[in-house]
Amino acid sequence: MNPALFNKPRLMTPGPTDVPPAVLLEMAQPIIHHRTKEFQAIFAELSELLRRLFRTAGPVLTIAGSGTTAFEAAQTSLIEPGAKALTIAGGKFGERWQDIYDAHDVGQHRINAEWGNATNPEQVKQLLDDHPDISVVTIVHSETSTATASDIQAIAAIVRQTDALLIVDGITAVGALPLDMDDWGIDVLVTGSQKALMLPPGLGFVGLGERAVARLESVEPAHVYNLDLRRWLKSHKDDDVPFTPPVNLIRGQLVALRMIEDQGLDMIWDRTAALAKAGRAAFEAMGLKLISTSPSDSVTGAFYPDGIDDKTFRGDLRDDFGIHVAGGQAGRGADWKGRIFRISHMGHVDVGDPLATLAAIEAALIQQDVKIKPGTALDAATAALQ
Amino acid sequence: MNPALFNKPRLMTPGPTDVPPAVLLEMAQPIIHHRTKEFQAIFAELSELLRRLFRTAGPVLTIAGSGTTAFEAAQTSLIEPGAKALTIAGGKFGERWQDIYDAHDVGQHRINAEWGNATNPEQVKQLLDDHPDISVVTIVHSETSTATASDIQAIAAIVRQTDALLIVDGITAVGALPLDMDDWGIDVLVTGSQKALMLPPGLGFVGLGERAVARLESVEPAHVYNLDLRRWLKSHKDDDVPFTPPVNLIRGQLVALRMIEDQGLDMIWDRTAALAKAGRAAFEAMGLKLISTSPSDSVTGAFYPDGIDDKTFRGDLRDDFGIHVAGGQAGRGADWKGRIFRISHMGHVDVGDPLATLAAIEAALIQQDVKIKPGTALDAATAALQ
Repeated sequence: MNPALFNKPRLMTPGPTDVPPAVLLEMAQPIIHHRTKEFQAIFAELSELLRRLFRTAGPVLTIAGSGTTAFEAAQTSLIEPGAKALTIAGGKFGERWQDIYDAHDVGQHRINAEWGNATNPEQVKQLLDDHPDISVVTIVHSETSTATASDIQAIAAIVRQTDALLIVDGITAVGALPLDMDDWGIDVLVTGSQKALMLPPGLGFVGLGERAVARLESVEPAHVYNLDLRRWLKSHKDDDVPFTPPVNLIRGQLVALRMIEDQGLDMIWDRTAALAKAGRAAFEAMGLKLISTSPSDSVTGAFYPDGIDDKTFRGDLRDDFGIHVAGGQAGRGADWKGRIFRISHMGHVDVGDPLATLAAIEAALIQQDVKIKPGTALDAATAALQ
Repeated sequence: MNPALFNKPRLMTPGPTDVPPAVLLEMAQPIIHHRTKEFQAIFAELSELLRRLFRTAGPVLTIAGSGTTAFEAAQTSLIEPGAKALTIAGGKFGERWQDIYDAHDVGQHRINAEWGNATNPEQVKQLLDDHPDISVVTIVHSETSTATASDIQAIAAIVRQTDALLIVDGITAVGALPLDMDDWGIDVLVTGSQKALMLPPGLGFVGLGERAVARLESVEPAHVYNLDLRRWLKSHKDDDVPFTPPVNLIRGQLVALRMIEDQGLDMIWDRTAALAKAGRAAFEAMGLKLISTSPSDSVTGAFYPDGIDDKTFRGDLRDDFGIHVAGGQAGRGADWKGRIFRISHMGHVDVGDPLATLAAIEAALIQQDVKIKPGTALDAATAALQ
């Protein structure tokens, strides 16, 4: 397909994702002070819509920073000196949560699944049975670096049989994958603003179930101030935050959450699943091998065929077609830099975005002499969408 | 003066402050990914303009979060387990930095000046002489809660004679008060986006002098991950950040810093000083007692005359005149809630803003039966501005 037919930039990376114009314009509203009734009303509505998004009756805290900020807050606030964690990883982000506990001198039992594979819930059960002293369990719902989804519902049911709290990284899951925090028994659910929530980066969110709130009321965490969730929970009861919040991001997030409400969460989950199905079908039809044996619907990744240079391929996509896709990441379990690419199905996207993206990917691969019959990607995508 | 003559909202609080429309609109630009040449160029220019603003040849790190986030990062990254701090306070924010070291189990020698008074540099010298084991000194340049400025130049010269690093809270100082990081020998200078830097809240900045960079290259801080400045410094060398940054705030900050460059820092310092002088003269002419014996030019505060109710007064100002001023804060050294009010002279303001604000304050006080001859505030302000 002729690159000249492409004229719109498309940000198809799994975060940040594109932001709707109405949200951008809301963020351009004049600044209001955060200690006002006006802000309090905005914050109260935001918190209510976050609860509906997380499907929880508990509080959802809004924290300035990245998803990592919010996850570190959850990790460090809910544990006492000397307590042990079970940390489940299978990609760069799961490994990061292990690094954070290492930095905080928290002893860990670790599960490291091979990159691209989900952890077997039975393995979690076994470790919890063997080590009744485990105080928290961390896991990634959708591991962005490997485009892999874990069976959070099964693992939550297992953890719920113990006194350990389950802290779920839902950064590329909340608002994209079916997820019911209270019904599944997730104690802590964390996400960020720049994925399915259709906002620029800058806000992290921490949902707290009943058991997590109870733990916060008695725990004595060490070496934490700004990220001490006890402080945030206390303020939250008055629709407030302990430190000056990013007011314009919060206003923008409210508008984005209203849009999610209007579309309906079930519809968004269905759409995300359909776009992911189309993406996987098109990749496989073009002869690309998926990077995950347990693919997440929020992001799809494929290994490059032999001979494809990552920088050239993604450079061509961006320069010639205006399409920005993500490359691979490196961690302890694997180094996928230069070996894979990934596209997002989250947030402000509809079927036109993956169709354009898949057509461009096909054209860019053909340009690099990969043998693909023109039309293969869209044929497969269309068939998958029937 | 008739409230009907007031028709524009004026945010006169010492943070957040008003944001110029050009900055708001820049933040409404479509999102770009942070791992791109386009973002790198923005970030490199931002960092260069921050260096010019701080007057340092060293790196200035840009961190997602509030000013507290950035200050905690500096406090915790530059100290090793067992090392001692000297913490200088005289208001709510100085006390907060003491609380942070308490939360991190860092032993402290404390100086607590009476609220509204600056610390005597001789007292700092004495404590440093008595305790050569002090590893860092924290101080607030402009204590927002008490509208008080410290003599940072004198204190920096004293600390520079020792091996201790000086960490300065410049949150309501940088871009408002004369300040020369390298020339004065400040090791670490911290500020936030929502004060003189004319951006919404959401970014903190940490400038690092030579001695601070050297310390970061050898220190082994404990219990810190996201806020570990070693990580941020390493990324900064490639015009990068370690975690997904608030891209749109960073774009907005670049535009705001270009405006500061265009206006000229010396001119901004002069303007801030003039507006503050006018504010103090008007307050005193109306019979109000200033809250500080060593007033900062970035914020001016006064005690209420007997019989004035804080909520009514500030509510009238906001509802009738559209002017938002700050009340008092409470801390260990004093409880000024309900006893004082404060106005800002920072950021996107010109002489019209304090003139309108002082006229409204006079009218609101007269409305509450304070005996003031109409015109007193503006007479005094005008005289001060000659």
